[in-house]
Amino acid sequence: MSTHENTITLLISCPDKPGIVSAVSSFIHQHNGNILESDQYSTNHDDSTFFMRISFAEDSFKLTPSELTSAFQRVAVQFQMHWNVNYSRIRKRVGILVSKYDHCLVDLLWRWKMGELEMDIPFIISNHPDLESIANMYTIPFYHFPVKRATRQEDERRMLDFIGDQVDFLILARYMQILEQFFVEAFPRRIINIHHSFLPAFIGASPYNQAFQRGVKLIGATAHYVTNNLDEGPIIEQDVIHCNHRDSVEDLIRKGRDVERRVLAEAVRLHTSNRVLVYENKTIVF
Amino acid sequence: MSTHENTITLLISCPDKPGIVSAVSSFIHQHNGNILESDQYSTNHDDSTFFMRISFAEDSFKLTPSELTSAFQRVAVQFQMHWNVNYSRIRKRVGILVSKYDHCLVDLLWRWKMGELEMDIPFIISNHPDLESIANMYTIPFYHFPVKRATRQEDERRMLDFIGDQVDFLILARYMQILEQFFVEAFPRRIINIHHSFLPAFIGASPYNQAFQRGVKLIGATAHYVTNNLDEGPIIEQDVIHCNHRDSVEDLIRKGRDVERRVLAEAVRLHTSNRVLVYENKTIVF
Amino acid sequence: MSTHENTITLLISCPDKPGIVSAVSSFIHQHNGNILESDQYSTNHDDSTFFMRISFAEDSFKLTPSELTSAFQRVAVQFQMHWNVNYSRIRKRVGILVSKYDHCLVDLLWRWKMGELEMDIPFIISNHPDLESIANMYTIPFYHFPVKRATRQEDERRMLDFIGDQVDFLILARYMQILEQFFVEAFPRRIINIHHSFLPAFIGASPYNQAFQRGVKLIGATAHYVTNNLDEGPIIEQDVIHCNHRDSVEDLIRKGRDVERRVLAEAVRLHTSNRVLVYENKTIVF
Amino acid sequence: MSTHENTITLLISCPDKPGIVSAVSSFIHQHNGNILESDQYSTNHDDSTFFMRISFAEDSFKLTPSELTSAFQRVAVQFQMHWNVNYSRIRKRVGILVSKYDHCLVDLLWRWKMGELEMDIPFIISNHPDLESIANMYTIPFYHFPVKRATRQEDERRMLDFIGDQVDFLILARYMQILEQFFVEAFPRRIINIHHSFLPAFIGASPYNQAFQRGVKLIGATAHYVTNNLDEGPIIEQDVIHCNHRDSVEDLIRKGRDVERRVLAEAVRLHTSNRVLVYENKTIVF
Repeated sequence: MSTHENTITLLISCPDKPGIVSAVSSFIHQHNGNILESDQYSTNHDDSTFFMRISFAEDSFKLTPSELTSAFQRVAVQFQMHWNVNYSRIRKRVGILVSKYDHCLVDLLWRWKMGELEMDIPFIISNHPDLESIANMYTIPFYHFPVKRATRQEDERRMLDFIGDQVDFLILARYMQILEQFFVEAFPRRIINIHHSFLPAFIGASPYNQAFQRGVKLIGATAHYVTNNLDEGPIIEQDVIHCNHRDSVEDLIRKGRDVERRVLAEAVRLHTSNRVLVYENKTIVF
Repeated sequence: MSTHENTITLLISCPDKPGIVSAVSSFIHQHNGNILESDQYSTNHDDSTFFMRISFAEDSFKLTPSELTSAFQRVAVQFQMHWNVNYSRIRKRVGILVSKYDHCLVDLLWRWKMGELEMDIPFIISNHPDLESIANMYTIPFYHFPVKRATRQEDERRMLDFIGDQVDFLILARYMQILEQFFVEAFPRRIINIHHSFLPAFIGASPYNQAFQRGVKLIGATAHYVTNNLDEGPIIEQDVIHCNHRDSVEDLIRKGRDVERRVLAEAVRLHTSNRVLVYENKTIVF
Repeated sequence: MSTHENTITLLISCPDKPGIVSAVSSFIHQHNGNILESDQYSTNHDDSTFFMRISFAEDSFKLTPSELTSAFQRVAVQFQMHWNVNYSRIRKRVGILVSKYDHCLVDLLWRWKMGELEMDIPFIISNHPDLESIANMYTIPFYHFPVKRATRQEDERRMLDFIGDQVDFLILARYMQILEQFFVEAFPRRIINIHHSFLPAFIGASPYNQAFQRGVKLIGATAHYVTNNLDEGPIIEQDVIHCNHRDSVEDLIRKGRDVERRVLAEAVRLHTSNRVLVYENKTIVF
Repeated sequence: MSTHENTITLLISCPDKPGIVSAVSSFIHQHNGNILESDQYSTNHDDSTFFMRISFAEDSFKLTPSELTSAFQRVAVQFQMHWNVNYSRIRKRVGILVSKYDHCLVDLLWRWKMGELEMDIPFIISNHPDLESIANMYTIPFYHFPVKRATRQEDERRMLDFIGDQVDFLILARYMQILEQFFVEAFPRRIINIHHSFLPAFIGASPYNQAFQRGVKLIGATAHYVTNNLDEGPIIEQDVIHCNHRDSVEDLIRKGRDVERRVLAEAVRLHTSNRVLVYENKTIVF
C-alpha cells in the first residue's frame, strides 16, 4: 500500500501473552494516532514469541519522538518487549558495496531515483574502480577501497573506519569479497547480500556453474542478512526462473541477472519500509 | 498458518475513524480472548471504509456466542459496523453444482477429504447424471436436476426449493448453466464460480477457443462471486499458465484444467476460512 | 502439440558431425514419412555429442517396424548412433509404487483416465495396504509387498521377480523405501521418482522440516530418474511455490502436495511421449 | 543456447507437404553447413502451412550470400516458400521511440550494452526532450520530434522521412502516441510495442486504472507487433505479476514497470535472433 502521509512504525517482539495488541493499539489511540497497518505473528511453541509491526499516521499523533519513547517504555517493560520506532520522514541511510558486476547496482539506483526505495545513499564503495561512472550518473560519491588477500584485515578495517556511523545498513550488490568477522559484527542483521542461487542449493563459489553441472530446471537468487556463516544468514526474499538443457553457463548468468536484481531490490524495499524482523536464523516479513 | 485450536473470527467493515483497532482488541482482551491473527485495510478515499479480520482463541474466551453478540453490539453501534462472527468449530456447509467436467469436483473432494477445506458438503447437484459415481466414492448425496432451456425458470426454482437452508454457500465447479436472477439473489456473495479464463479477458463462452484465436502466450482461470452480470462479479483468486503456438485448443483445455482446479480450491479455502470481504465489486482477501 | 494420428518417433544420440539431420530426414522422406516434429541439441564441447528427436506420421510410411529397424541401421552405423524407435500406438507399460500418501497416485490416475498420459498400468505395488481402494476405483490390480528393514534385500527381490518384464518403466509416487542397487539397475533410467524438495536443496529425509528450519521463501519438488546415489539422478522437471513465515511444517506439506503431483505428472507425460534423453547425469527434454 | 560462432538462419513458410525438412537439410549439408538448431511447426488444418527456422554454421559453408540466395531459390520454388536469410554477423538495426517513461528504455540500453541484444541502435526518437540524457549516456543520437494532435499526420510524415531506411525495425518503448496508418504500413510486422496489460484484457488507455477498478489479482504486460488495429496485433510475449487489494494504482504502476521492461526485452531478444514468425494474427516463436 502506498501512502503519502508521514507514518510512525513500531516493530515489537516479546514473549506471547494475552493483551499485547490491545495495549499497543490503545496506547496509539490514546495519543491520537490513527492505525494504518497492523501485522502480528506468534511462533507456535510452548515458549512462544510474539512479533508485531504497527503503523500509524504521524500528523495527528500528540507525542514528540522523545515523549513517545519514554511513554511507550512503560508498555514495553510490562510485556518485556524488544522494540524500535521508525519515522517515515527520516529515511534510512545505506552504503552500497560493489565489485565489477553492474546489474544490481544499476537497478537499485534506477529504482531509487524512481522513488521505489525510501533511502539516502551517502556513498558507494568498491574494491575495483570499474563502476565509478555509474555512481557519477547519480552523483553519489564513489570510493575505491582495494582489498588484497594478504592485507584483507587492514583493508576492511580502513573501510569500516571510513564508513563509521554514516549509514544505517549496507547492501552487498554483488560485492565479491568475503567480509571479516569484525566487519559483519559491526552491522548485525544490517548487511543485505544477494547470493546468486536458490539457497541452500549451491552454497559458495560459482553457483551457476554448479547449477549447470547438476542440470537443474530452475535457477534462483536469494537475498539474506549476512552472518559469519557464509550464505547461511536469515533469508529475506527468494525467486527462481526456468531454464533448460539449451542454457549454457553464460545463459544461466544472463537469466540469473534478472532474478538477482529483482530479488535484491525487493529485499531492500522490505528492509527500508521496516517490514523485516529476524527470529533466530529466519525472517518474519510483514 | 495452521492452528489446531478452536478460534473465533470477527469480520468487520465500517467508516474509517481513529480508535477502531483499539476498541476491538480491547473488547477481546477484556473477555480473555488471545488474539491470534489480525488484519486490516482502509480504502484511501475522502470517505474511506475500514475492513478488519481478527481471530482469537475460543478456549479462554469468557463469553458464550449469544453473550458475545450482545456485548459486541455496543462496540459495533459506536462505529456503525457491519460485522459477523465465525466459530472455527462450526464448519460452513456448502452445496456443489457440477455438469459433466469432473476435474474441479475431483480436486475439491480430494482436498476436502485431506482436511484442506474446512466445510461440510450436504449434497452435490448436477444437471447431468455423469458424475454421480464420484459423489458416491465420497458418500455424498448426489441429485440430478435436469435443466431445460424452455423451463429453466421452473427447473431452477425447484432446485432452489430443494436447497432451502441446507447450505451457507454454493460452489459452481464448472456448472455449465447460467443462473437466473432470483437464484443468484438467494445467495448474495455466496456463490463461487470458476471461469476458465483470466478475466476480464475472454468473457462468455468458449474462452479457450477465444484464447487460441487471439494467440495469447498465457492462459488463466478466475474464481469469483456470482452476480447478475455474467463473469463480472468480485474476483477472489486468479492464476495463469504459459502456453505457446504448439498448443492446440485441446492442449489449452488440458493445461487449463490444472489452473482451474487450483484457483477454485484456493478461493474456496479462503472463503471457508473467512478471509474474503467484498467491497463494491472487489474483494479484500486477508 | 496434440496429434491424433499414429506417429513414429526416433530418439538418437551420436558424436556430432555434419550431415546427421540431412541423413535422418532424407531417410524418413525416402520412405514416405511426413516429419511432424524435429528437435536437436548438441553439447558444445570439443568432443561434442548430438541428440535428436524426430517424429513422423506412421500412416504413409512405407516400412514395417522390422524393415525400419534394419534399414535405419545403415544410417546408424555410419554415424555411430545410439537410437531407438517408438510407435505411438504402442503405449508404454508402467508400474506404480506407492506407500501411504495418496496425492500423487490420485492425480496420476485421474490424468491417465482423462487421456493426458499415454500409458498402460498393469499394476500398482505398495508396501502398505492403505491405497488399495484407489486402485480399485480405476480397476487396476493392487499388490501389497511389505518391506521390512531386516529383509529388504529378499523383499525387493521378490517384488522384482513379480514385476519381471510386465512394464517398460516404474513410477515412485511417494514410495517411501530406498531401493536396493540391484533393483535400480534392473531399470536403468527407467524409474521416475518425485522428491519433495527443490534439489539439490534438502537432500534426504524430511525436506519440508529442513525447509522450515532454514526459513526459505519458496518450496519445490523435483522429478528425476533414480540412480544409486540418493536424490542425485538426472532431473527431469522441477517447480516451486512461494511460502512465508506463517507457513508451519504442515502448511509446507499441504502446499508441497500441489507442486509434487504437478511436477511428477509432467515428468511422466514427458517420459511417455519420448521427450527425455539422458546425457551424463543430466536430461535433455525436447 | 549461446553460440559464439557466426551462423546463418533461414526462416521459411510454405504449404505443408512431405520432403521439406529433407530438402532444406540436404541443401545445407551439400554446401558444407553444419546444422546447429532446427525448429518446425505445421498448422493442423486441411490446408496446412509449414514453418521452419534452421540455423547453421557460416564458417564451413561454401556459398557466398548471393550464391546462397540463387541456389536456395530452386528449393524455394519447388515448395512455394516464403523465406529469408539472416547472417548473425550482420546485426539488425533498430530505432527506439519513447516519450517520458524511462524504465523500458533504460532496461533495453543496459541489456544492449551487456551484449544481451544483438542489434545496432542508430537513433532514439522522442516526442518529448526528457530522456535525452539517457541516450547521451550510451552515446546514441537522440532526436526530438514533437507530435501535436492537430498536425500529427505531418509530424509523423517528417519522422518517417527522417527514419528512411536507417533501420530494420522499430521499438515503441512506452511511446505514448498512436501511429498513423501510413507509418505502421511502412514497417509491417516490424514495429514492436509494449502494452501495459495482459491483452486482450484492458485494451486502450490507462490499463492500470482499469485493472484497479476491476479488482484483478494479477497484472500483466504484452509485447506485440503493431498493426492498424489498436492493441490487436500479433502477440510475441506476455507475463504477469501478482497483486492484491492493498495495491493502489501507483503500486500497480510500480509493479507493472518490472513486467513491462522484462516482456519487452524478451520480445526484442526473440525478434533480433530471428525466432518470431507471424501467421495470420498470431506468432510462432521458435
